[in-house]
Amino acid sequence: MYNAHPHQRHHHSLSGSHGSQRHSHHRHGSSVSVPPPGADPQMWQWFAAVDTDRSGYITANELQTALINANGTRFDLDTVKMLMNIFDTDRNGRIGFQEFTGLWKYIVDWQNVFRHFDRDKSGSIDGRELSEALLSFGYRLSPSLLTKIEHKYASGPVAGYGPPPGITFDRFVRACVTIKTLTDSFKQLDRNNDGWVQMNYEQFMMLILGAP
Amino acid sequence: MYNAHPHQRHHHSLSGSHGSQRHSHHRHGSSVSVPPPGADPQMWQWFAAVDTDRSGYITANELQTALINANGTRFDLDTVKMLMNIFDTDRNGRIGFQEFTGLWKYIVDWQNVFRHFDRDKSGSIDGRELSEALLSFGYRLSPSLLTKIEHKYASGPVAGYGPPPGITFDRFVRACVTIKTLTDSFKQLDRNNDGWVQMNYEQFMMLILGAP
Repeated sequence: MYNAHPHQRHHHSLSGSHGSQRHSHHRHGSSVSVPPPGADPQMWQWFAAVDTDRSGYITANELQTALINANGTRFDLDTVKMLMNIFDTDRNGRIGFQEFTGLWKYIVDWQNVFRHFDRDKSGSIDGRELSEALLSFGYRLSPSLLTKIEHKYASGPVAGYGPPPGITFDRFVRACVTIKTLTDSFKQLDRNNDGWVQMNYEQFMMLILGAP
Repeated sequence: MYNAHPHQRHHHSLSGSHGSQRHSHHRHGSSVSVPPPGADPQMWQWFAAVDTDRSGYITANELQTALINANGTRFDLDTVKMLMNIFDTDRNGRIGFQEFTGLWKYIVDWQNVFRHFDRDKSGSIDGRELSEALLSFGYRLSPSLLTKIEHKYASGPVAGYGPPPGITFDRFVRACVTIKTLTDSFKQLDRNNDGWVQMNYEQFMMLILGAP
């Protein structure tokens, strides 16, 4: 449903700088898990580090525990659900090793995009950085729409004065995927490509609620 | 922008059962705060309990710390931002005592709605309870739309088998406010009341991103 790699023009190396945080846990009394034949040993190590209960699958809770923004906050439940929706392809509610490989690459790709557009290295995306990122993805949005997105995905409430707080990594990814999903839906409805769509209440609600 | 009391037909007593958790903190060395003239002393006590740094204002962080679902989870940032948007009427990014009075009543009202529809007293709203609640608010939605809402606001990912996890309090409130906001927007666009709306990309995106 979603494009797993919407930003290939910014595709950097996938050999992450994340290994240092991802050593597998050698629990007392538990045997060290062995990767399946043909598995990338480094990827298996990351998988085993996230699969803290050694079930062979990653649950949403394990995923939410493993995923941390630069400022130390956990990923929003809605971002974790979005990731599960994209990568739990067999729909068993858990992430197996093969599914994890795709998820991991997706996150590393997005981390590279995020770092690329976080020009001031603040660890969050401000309004100007957001508009540059969206423009590079091909979304030429109006200033009022950009402000709306900046406020909606800001990682805190927006006061009447001063700029809103920046957008943390997980909310930035969710914002971008949501804008892509909604824009794709709009284009699909706009059959004659005149910039206008007509829809009934059911279509309208299904379309909106289908976005992350 | 939002209707602070969308459920008056289920309006129960506002004298909450929350006082027991809301005693003000008598910090060593800090003077006990005095309510402003005419203030409800009980409401002032609740306000002082949430205003942990005694600044006279409640920040989003203080609000998020004070608001806990029945299962112990914190409110989503998006719910806290929604509440700040509704009740920070002077847009200074903080909740003063007068604003807090409205916020508190709103939450107590919604708690009564939630308890009313949580028929099995599970602490979360399942699909059937959700459809009964929405119907009582006047939303007669299709089964597929109800399923979409149930999945989107479920407090965890949805596996291919079995029912999705239930909807916790804060996500239930956000779901209801979102459905009301979107439905109101649709009705406003549907001037001739024929069940169809026409909109351009800007309207479409602004409308969706304006919902909580």
